[in-house]
Amino acid sequence: MIVVMNPDASKDDVSRITDKLKRMGYGVHLSIGERRTIIGVIGQRREEAAQALEAMSQVERVVFITRPFKLAGREFHPDDTVINLGHTTIGGSELIVMAGPCAVEGEAQLMEAANTVKEAGAQVFRAGAFKPRTSPYSFQGLEIKGLEYLDRVRSETGLLIVTEVMDQFTVSEVAACADILQVGARNMQNYFLLRELGRIRKPVLLKRGLSATVEEWLMAAEYILNGGNYEVILCERGIRTFEPYTRNTLDLSAVPLVKQLSPLPVIVDPSHGTGHSSLVPAMSKAAVAAGADGLMIEVHPNPEEALSDGPQSLNPAQFKTLIRDLKGVALNAGRLL
Amino acid sequence: MIVVMNPDASKDDVSRITDKLKRMGYGVHLSIGERRTIIGVIGQRREEAAQALEAMSQVERVVFITRPFKLAGREFHPDDTVINLGHTTIGGSELIVMAGPCAVEGEAQLMEAANTVKEAGAQVFRAGAFKPRTSPYSFQGLEIKGLEYLDRVRSETGLLIVTEVMDQFTVSEVAACADILQVGARNMQNYFLLRELGRIRKPVLLKRGLSATVEEWLMAAEYILNGGNYEVILCERGIRTFEPYTRNTLDLSAVPLVKQLSPLPVIVDPSHGTGHSSLVPAMSKAAVAAGADGLMIEVHPNPEEALSDGPQSLNPAQFKTLIRDLKGVALNAGRLL
Amino acid sequence: MIVVMNPDASKDDVSRITDKLKRMGYGVHLSIGERRTIIGVIGQRREEAAQALEAMSQVERVVFITRPFKLAGREFHPDDTVINLGHTTIGGSELIVMAGPCAVEGEAQLMEAANTVKEAGAQVFRAGAFKPRTSPYSFQGLEIKGLEYLDRVRSETGLLIVTEVMDQFTVSEVAACADILQVGARNMQNYFLLRELGRIRKPVLLKRGLSATVEEWLMAAEYILNGGNYEVILCERGIRTFEPYTRNTLDLSAVPLVKQLSPLPVIVDPSHGTGHSSLVPAMSKAAVAAGADGLMIEVHPNPEEALSDGPQSLNPAQFKTLIRDLKGVALNAGRLL
Amino acid sequence: MIVVMNPDASKDDVSRITDKLKRMGYGVHLSIGERRTIIGVIGQRREEAAQALEAMSQVERVVFITRPFKLAGREFHPDDTVINLGHTTIGGSELIVMAGPCAVEGEAQLMEAANTVKEAGAQVFRAGAFKPRTSPYSFQGLEIKGLEYLDRVRSETGLLIVTEVMDQFTVSEVAACADILQVGARNMQNYFLLRELGRIRKPVLLKRGLSATVEEWLMAAEYILNGGNYEVILCERGIRTFEPYTRNTLDLSAVPLVKQLSPLPVIVDPSHGTGHSSLVPAMSKAAVAAGADGLMIEVHPNPEEALSDGPQSLNPAQFKTLIRDLKGVALNAGRLL
Repeated sequence: MIVVMNPDASKDDVSRITDKLKRMGYGVHLSIGERRTIIGVIGQRREEAAQALEAMSQVERVVFITRPFKLAGREFHPDDTVINLGHTTIGGSELIVMAGPCAVEGEAQLMEAANTVKEAGAQVFRAGAFKPRTSPYSFQGLEIKGLEYLDRVRSETGLLIVTEVMDQFTVSEVAACADILQVGARNMQNYFLLRELGRIRKPVLLKRGLSATVEEWLMAAEYILNGGNYEVILCERGIRTFEPYTRNTLDLSAVPLVKQLSPLPVIVDPSHGTGHSSLVPAMSKAAVAAGADGLMIEVHPNPEEALSDGPQSLNPAQFKTLIRDLKGVALNAGRLL
Repeated sequence: MIVVMNPDASKDDVSRITDKLKRMGYGVHLSIGERRTIIGVIGQRREEAAQALEAMSQVERVVFITRPFKLAGREFHPDDTVINLGHTTIGGSELIVMAGPCAVEGEAQLMEAANTVKEAGAQVFRAGAFKPRTSPYSFQGLEIKGLEYLDRVRSETGLLIVTEVMDQFTVSEVAACADILQVGARNMQNYFLLRELGRIRKPVLLKRGLSATVEEWLMAAEYILNGGNYEVILCERGIRTFEPYTRNTLDLSAVPLVKQLSPLPVIVDPSHGTGHSSLVPAMSKAAVAAGADGLMIEVHPNPEEALSDGPQSLNPAQFKTLIRDLKGVALNAGRLL
Repeated sequence: MIVVMNPDASKDDVSRITDKLKRMGYGVHLSIGERRTIIGVIGQRREEAAQALEAMSQVERVVFITRPFKLAGREFHPDDTVINLGHTTIGGSELIVMAGPCAVEGEAQLMEAANTVKEAGAQVFRAGAFKPRTSPYSFQGLEIKGLEYLDRVRSETGLLIVTEVMDQFTVSEVAACADILQVGARNMQNYFLLRELGRIRKPVLLKRGLSATVEEWLMAAEYILNGGNYEVILCERGIRTFEPYTRNTLDLSAVPLVKQLSPLPVIVDPSHGTGHSSLVPAMSKAAVAAGADGLMIEVHPNPEEALSDGPQSLNPAQFKTLIRDLKGVALNAGRLL
Repeated sequence: MIVVMNPDASKDDVSRITDKLKRMGYGVHLSIGERRTIIGVIGQRREEAAQALEAMSQVERVVFITRPFKLAGREFHPDDTVINLGHTTIGGSELIVMAGPCAVEGEAQLMEAANTVKEAGAQVFRAGAFKPRTSPYSFQGLEIKGLEYLDRVRSETGLLIVTEVMDQFTVSEVAACADILQVGARNMQNYFLLRELGRIRKPVLLKRGLSATVEEWLMAAEYILNGGNYEVILCERGIRTFEPYTRNTLDLSAVPLVKQLSPLPVIVDPSHGTGHSSLVPAMSKAAVAAGADGLMIEVHPNPEEALSDGPQSLNPAQFKTLIRDLKGVALNAGRLL
């Protein structure tokens, strides 16, 4: 940290700060310029320390030099995190495709969707049993019943299952059926849930919050890693901007950026990221070309009858075409699909 | 709802849509223009219906005409919601001031803060026992112990207590000690929590999410109201924008806007809204002048020693000056303080 | 500036940087930590220098310590800038009210509007002769003819005139008729225009860009001040966010923030800031309570017939009521109206 | 357009609106629901009409059904616009690469850069003679002298030239040397400039504004097309969001979206779009995979010595590697490079 003093701070003001820093256990390095004094603070970065300093009089502001994340950063873990799961890996040379409907709507719809995505070449099946919905009058998911249907999909098709867990108290129930537990965008900073997920030993797919910075996203991952669960998959799903033609703005630059900052795998969800099925193929290819480790795509046997997210769901034929087209893009990006 | 067809949609395409609408129980009103056909849909607004229609081929988009909120809207509840609480009211002619430290740090700090804000004229005491923190390495709150200290504040000072509840499973514990239960910005769309809060009969203070639209905020309130708890207080606390000099951008236009759309009381938190104690007095006055029903302000006996949010906390002298200055502004706005 | 080196930068890497800094004329202050080296750079802040350093290998990033603005900042000009204009002052103890229609539509409309706002108590008349419009098919303004009408308003009513200048080549024509030259939000970073305005000796009203940070806004003012024209009035008019219910999000916290950073007067335009006439009165009062030096408000004799911005224009009766209500708020804020 | 009336609008209120619409020359289509009346307006979309209606009492809001752009839209021009330029085409089967330094710094630097990008395979050379800079203390460009150097590059290397034009009065001077005239992001809504560019017969590269919606961007193109110049190339260069790790957020979904809405070619500038040279290769590949017609990339012989934008400039070796890697991606996207 660096403490920038006001131009009119006195020697006494500076001493008051350096004394406090020493009491806090920090080393101090003074740099007295013509117009202002700057205090270099040597020791571990702590938000509380920075806030306490910033609240002191004659301090203009506190500037952080190091990044706040440790376990989620490359500095301490230079090598890529590769997660082994069934016959596949995530974060390695394979391109992972997770596909399926937004929500579990019923057993028949689910099995049909599962067979479709398996046949097309997806390795992981996605569908929500618990659904966070903006309106209390919308379909809220089949909940426990939905988990049972997902279990059947796994045993009958051999597909891996990813599904959302919405609070710390259902982690074990979801973990009993899911191969990967998904944290939704609205829950990215649900710290009780993140801490509980740090205690299990199954991969967690952590969606970026609707307006989360990359730093906040990696700090959310840090909660899980800090609990001892090192298998976190990050998922970019679009951020909120002023543009109304798309549901969100898919931030693909987050893919190479996160790969520079962190060893964790990063996948992309172009369905939520754009909100329009007609934009999904282009953005899927772009995501793979940008270096994403995988994709999460909404596919519905019949989007016109979907109980949610129909406009952003591919139908089976569109999904098959996309997978076929992706093979070349993946190869160019050094990935197997 | 209005369904806008593509310019090259055929008669059959239109029939397919209108048939589907009739099967869904909607009335249909056709308007055939020179370049495109528009279908007016008569009946209750439903997101699922809109999504299903938007997924159909030759539909360009679906436009909503009515607002999605019902119980949270003025259309069905024209009169202001006034909440009676102890000797005071929220949403009526009084200006309510909620003040106190960010977090419960210890018993002595808490009692000192409580006496300060009471003396200065606040009616409600705020302090967090549970703390959502961006970093797993930051102070996470005293939790249950913190609630006990808050209980002592209430019995010894007579101040009303507002404190955050972070999940549906601690609602009863928090409700046992708090007069008002606060939902934090990161939890605004935690639907399990909102549903549980619909079941209790105590006022809920619902903070606006970091990047929530006014519509989403009112829909979150709708979850609570829909459960039968009509005492919801909305709290504007700043939204996320590109401006780095302030922690958030305090959206004061949300105050008159929400008052037009909804009967619910609206208060403003200029401490989180700006992140700098030096901006809190000006924005407190502005909030009252804009028509806010109250304020939530961070006050700490010694901001330089606060375990969190020191830079945005007023010290006791600053808070007393602010309350004194606010009296005239409140009077001008037709409020008693 | 502070140069943060990568953790794995070698001694040679650091020497390469410090040598370059010395060649550039900077003093250097080395701080070698456990994990990384930090180079304090002593001398004048320059963007080019920072960019050149950031492009060097093993440099993680360059952090600025000082603000980029000089003439626009309080550090070099601690006292408030007060502009004397006719019988009034801007930035002093008076609250300045600028009012009038969006555009000059014709002579009769203009005179009617001018008499209305004068009678109600405004000191400055606003109306655009040149109109920047999003669509080429919209009314583009009366241009030179409009300036003539404005001249007549000034001579007949004695009101001061503020009107927009859209490029560097019409500065003298606009200056011949206007008492204050307005730079629109879309032109905030039109540097040729700003430089030309630095050469004249008339006040300039500089609107904040649609997505300009406070720092960029002050840097735009710096262009004008740097030319020797010190009479710049800043005007907050709303920024672009994700909220669709308002045309822009009026950032009132910019008022006290700019007042801390800069000696320049700040006024607020709640008409463009909200886009809805029903929100203008509340936001006008809030702006004055926040410490604004004045207001710019759209008033039209008949908003239903306005050629532009009708929905955000007050009619004469609404404007008179607002001015009456503002008197108390102004008094509380220590301002005369 | 559709006019949504307030729920408590009377029959008289509705008549007042429909009468006005008829006087304006619009057809009217009434739809009287249980709770509110909706008026369908048949005729050409006009912003002024919508604003006048929205200003009328008892009108809740006006909803547009058609898009505001005509010449820039696919509806009236279904086929892709292909621009023939020298030996190449833009918007056809070729992938166009525009590369070069941010600014013309001197003759030697320019020739070196030009030879580098030519050798690597770029078809168009970019460099700014006029430079819009945030700070008045930064390097402002060589202006006319810079244009002369660019002319020499063209005659000596045979590369096509793209360079920025900053106002309507230098259009002819820039057009004399440039093959493509660039409109910078800050000038996207400089309507005088856009109108002047409508009068020439050379391609215009129109950068998206810092916070421009796709609709506003296409409307800016409409200004040029409306003047009779149909050769407009759109360039996505990142939008402003809350994310601080990147200079802008590159919105690649704008590529397929614009391609759906408009026949105009779209290229991508990943240098300004990210601000970091380390992110440029990944985002270049992603842009091509998303369907972009070309790329604009900053390349400097020695980024550490660049007078501007060094941190986002590739050096010659990095650029050659990128072009080599792009060939496969282009092929997959059906493009020749």
